[in-house]
Amino acid sequence: MNELTILISCPDQVGLVTSITSVLAAHQLNIIAMREFVDEANKSFFTRIACTGMMFETDQLRQRLLECLPKTAQVDLVTKKEKQIAVLVTKEYHCLAEILIKNQFKTLGANVQCVIGNYEELRDFTEKMGIPYFHVSHLEKDKSQFENEIKHIIDGFEVDYLVLAKFMRILSADFVKSYAGKIINIHHSFLPAFIGANPYRQAFERGVKIIGATAHFVTDHLDEGPIITQHTTHVDHNFGVKEMVRAGKEIEKAVLLEALELLFEDRIFVSGNKTIIFK
Amino acid sequence: MNELTILISCPDQVGLVTSITSVLAAHQLNIIAMREFVDEANKSFFTRIACTGMMFETDQLRQRLLECLPKTAQVDLVTKKEKQIAVLVTKEYHCLAEILIKNQFKTLGANVQCVIGNYEELRDFTEKMGIPYFHVSHLEKDKSQFENEIKHIIDGFEVDYLVLAKFMRILSADFVKSYAGKIINIHHSFLPAFIGANPYRQAFERGVKIIGATAHFVTDHLDEGPIITQHTTHVDHNFGVKEMVRAGKEIEKAVLLEALELLFEDRIFVSGNKTIIFK
Amino acid sequence: MNELTILISCPDQVGLVTSITSVLAAHQLNIIAMREFVDEANKSFFTRIACTGMMFETDQLRQRLLECLPKTAQVDLVTKKEKQIAVLVTKEYHCLAEILIKNQFKTLGANVQCVIGNYEELRDFTEKMGIPYFHVSHLEKDKSQFENEIKHIIDGFEVDYLVLAKFMRILSADFVKSYAGKIINIHHSFLPAFIGANPYRQAFERGVKIIGATAHFVTDHLDEGPIITQHTTHVDHNFGVKEMVRAGKEIEKAVLLEALELLFEDRIFVSGNKTIIFK
Amino acid sequence: MNELTILISCPDQVGLVTSITSVLAAHQLNIIAMREFVDEANKSFFTRIACTGMMFETDQLRQRLLECLPKTAQVDLVTKKEKQIAVLVTKEYHCLAEILIKNQFKTLGANVQCVIGNYEELRDFTEKMGIPYFHVSHLEKDKSQFENEIKHIIDGFEVDYLVLAKFMRILSADFVKSYAGKIINIHHSFLPAFIGANPYRQAFERGVKIIGATAHFVTDHLDEGPIITQHTTHVDHNFGVKEMVRAGKEIEKAVLLEALELLFEDRIFVSGNKTIIFK
Repeated sequence: MNELTILISCPDQVGLVTSITSVLAAHQLNIIAMREFVDEANKSFFTRIACTGMMFETDQLRQRLLECLPKTAQVDLVTKKEKQIAVLVTKEYHCLAEILIKNQFKTLGANVQCVIGNYEELRDFTEKMGIPYFHVSHLEKDKSQFENEIKHIIDGFEVDYLVLAKFMRILSADFVKSYAGKIINIHHSFLPAFIGANPYRQAFERGVKIIGATAHFVTDHLDEGPIITQHTTHVDHNFGVKEMVRAGKEIEKAVLLEALELLFEDRIFVSGNKTIIFK
Repeated sequence: MNELTILISCPDQVGLVTSITSVLAAHQLNIIAMREFVDEANKSFFTRIACTGMMFETDQLRQRLLECLPKTAQVDLVTKKEKQIAVLVTKEYHCLAEILIKNQFKTLGANVQCVIGNYEELRDFTEKMGIPYFHVSHLEKDKSQFENEIKHIIDGFEVDYLVLAKFMRILSADFVKSYAGKIINIHHSFLPAFIGANPYRQAFERGVKIIGATAHFVTDHLDEGPIITQHTTHVDHNFGVKEMVRAGKEIEKAVLLEALELLFEDRIFVSGNKTIIFK
Repeated sequence: MNELTILISCPDQVGLVTSITSVLAAHQLNIIAMREFVDEANKSFFTRIACTGMMFETDQLRQRLLECLPKTAQVDLVTKKEKQIAVLVTKEYHCLAEILIKNQFKTLGANVQCVIGNYEELRDFTEKMGIPYFHVSHLEKDKSQFENEIKHIIDGFEVDYLVLAKFMRILSADFVKSYAGKIINIHHSFLPAFIGANPYRQAFERGVKIIGATAHFVTDHLDEGPIITQHTTHVDHNFGVKEMVRAGKEIEKAVLLEALELLFEDRIFVSGNKTIIFK
Repeated sequence: MNELTILISCPDQVGLVTSITSVLAAHQLNIIAMREFVDEANKSFFTRIACTGMMFETDQLRQRLLECLPKTAQVDLVTKKEKQIAVLVTKEYHCLAEILIKNQFKTLGANVQCVIGNYEELRDFTEKMGIPYFHVSHLEKDKSQFENEIKHIIDGFEVDYLVLAKFMRILSADFVKSYAGKIINIHHSFLPAFIGANPYRQAFERGVKIIGATAHFVTDHLDEGPIITQHTTHVDHNFGVKEMVRAGKEIEKAVLLEALELLFEDRIFVSGNKTIIFK
């Protein structure tokens, strides 16, 4: 038996589930798990169907599905399991280490192709984990040159997603457009609180009792992309900025890895500036 | 447009979703939300479908669904919104008050028909909230007499569910059988830890760092019925038994009310000793 | 044995704990629990000492403590247990009900003297709970007149704190000054995210995966006062504004009641725009 | 300025805080943070005092403290920061990796001296992280021989604590006694639920809605030692045993690392079968 995950998004209309499931039945596909959601505001329909079947011609199946759906429907048939990723970092190890450890022990659900950093701090660890490390400094060059060097490296691999694992440079709209919907960032605050730099200092100054982290898709508006996952943790008056940073790092890595798990299992749809996540 | 919630459970087989959705399409019903689950261990299929339609004959619809499903299928078509409940209590107010406040302000999703208590402590508050209170003492009578008196009161109302809101008497297998699948209890511990009496003292003696509560359906094995919801909260060495009880009460009422919300929205299936919950 | 809670805040200097505890020992007071904190940024010292003693002259004890502390020290000796409060509301019942229920069953740790509302919606419930309800409309009068009417009512009672339990009017700087450090508000968002009106709509539009609530002291800057407690809860794409509001209300009441418990047990110090809380 | 952490436990009596702080004042020590707790049930007093001072003779200071305390008092003066640890493992990498990553990046608060495993699976990773790995098989030998080999390795290092990072062999009472109060274990359930083997299968069979993990000191009663930290996470009907194990591993490593942080910062006292933790 072969496994197949079907992802469909299209304008909503009556009878979509019946149409879709009839096509699947005609191809002798058995539905293992099915989730659907209608975004009432945008009149959009989303479904994720996990199914199994003896043999099926994916091109033909895709064609049959498109025929019974609205013209603008997007249909993805996902058979391959493992995604390929590149990781961008600066100096902080905590998110990268979590990714590379899971990569090393084959529990990431994706393969890390390379790590690109604008400093050298994380080379040694990355290479110990058997992954190539590329140093691209942002110093003494303009942003487009910096980004072109990064692009050049990425394009040497076959990469499904770019993961910004505490990459502290802001990417240009052009760069983001080149990998639209393919860049995931971990932001070190509970967005939309504390947008921008030094969120832990902002949190400390405000005297908050909770800090958090946010994993989101990157769009060309800083910290404004569709949110995937968020978590918070309690802090108190004993937490200075340093202690908030330390506690924050634990949240950051948990939030990023949860987002990546959802991503690599094809559980996330993007609808406007929001995500629909079928857990 | 009328709303309809369809609940189906049956042995699993290929094509169930297609069969079901075809019937719905033939009745011009539009699927708003659909959830399904296959219990692989028991080869059982469960689905909850929320749909809307102009007009439909529920008896006929039910018949059509039964015709395309395995013989032992259970099909429920739920149109009425409000469930009717009776609440059983002893002396503690916290769960009862939460229920009666929501009942009073029409946010419970059910109507409280009556409160039955084996003490008089909660009469005054119950009556202020406009609900009849019945006192049935367990003293100086045997259990079957005690339970018959309770049954007599309940049967004077049309009741969908009995909610044990800190009712501290153990019900007999006979009583439970009379309301099979209809009795919900809040247990003051994170089951299966600390089964039985005085869980907070047990927790204190053991020096745990977390306490919890469990809402479950009542079966004739004490504290062993299908679990609906559980939550925990942190405690530390500053918590004596009294402080654990106080913190526990906050968890108890939150857990019970969450379970009731799921119940009153027809989101829970029972499969053997487990629950399947479509949130 | 009598219980006494001592609260001291003053500029930090070497030997404060020794000085303080020596005075206590000289008065035969036994320390049950002691917490202290030094705010390094402001060089301020805070301590909360719970102690028991056979007999002590509080005025004399206070004098001895002041003699051994820096000139600007604040020393509070708290013997009476119950605080007196007034509650201000608009139309939403959930926070008020939680307060009045605990008041009714003597587990609030304070006595509700009166409820003041700018609508009539909550009169019936309040009066059932045995508490006087005063209606002060904000319509057809200017803010100062509105606030003077409220003040007049409050000043007819002996009140330690004003609790804004979803009171939807913004209070003037003058009013706030009259009760400086004595007004507690529940804000329906995880501050500083979503300051101002309609936070749940803002949260929905942004597509956040967590919502929260914040209890804080009121200062004359809207939503900017010292934060006491915050909690968050997860939401997902199934939550519209209405569902966020419903989930938010559960958080709001939990957060407000936790803050009140800390307040009524004299566990909170305010230092600048932050709180120091000895749990 | 030098930092010093003072840990004292003794039978409770009036005036202990004054006596202790007077000794500190006489040695020109400034108290930075102080926590104390009285276990009323056992009439025991515990305090942790962090202080700074220009110069002090620790032996003399310890002597002065002992002179003013009950005879059976335990007084520890902790100046050195880094603890030395040995880690025992079987085949699962997740806890070990978390420890070795933090060790590698100097954020563990301790130094890993060696890793001992009863299989070879984790040798490669351990050695990449620069730590010696010792393989001691439990096969074809009796338990005392197995444990003697482990002891022999440990005793070749100067080790403060043994961390059982998913070490799946039960240690004998003799072995435990050799390192009394020095062995920390991570148990893969929310104790006391699901004591013993296969807790995730037990949890699955019972249909719980929460799973958890427990870090505790090891005593000679299996899974019965003083609990340090516990956390839980929600599961639902979609979780089979495999998914519970996966979710459980994330909790296990978080719980263990939190316990180790508290341990390495000298924040834990053991009192009978409970812990007192000054966070």
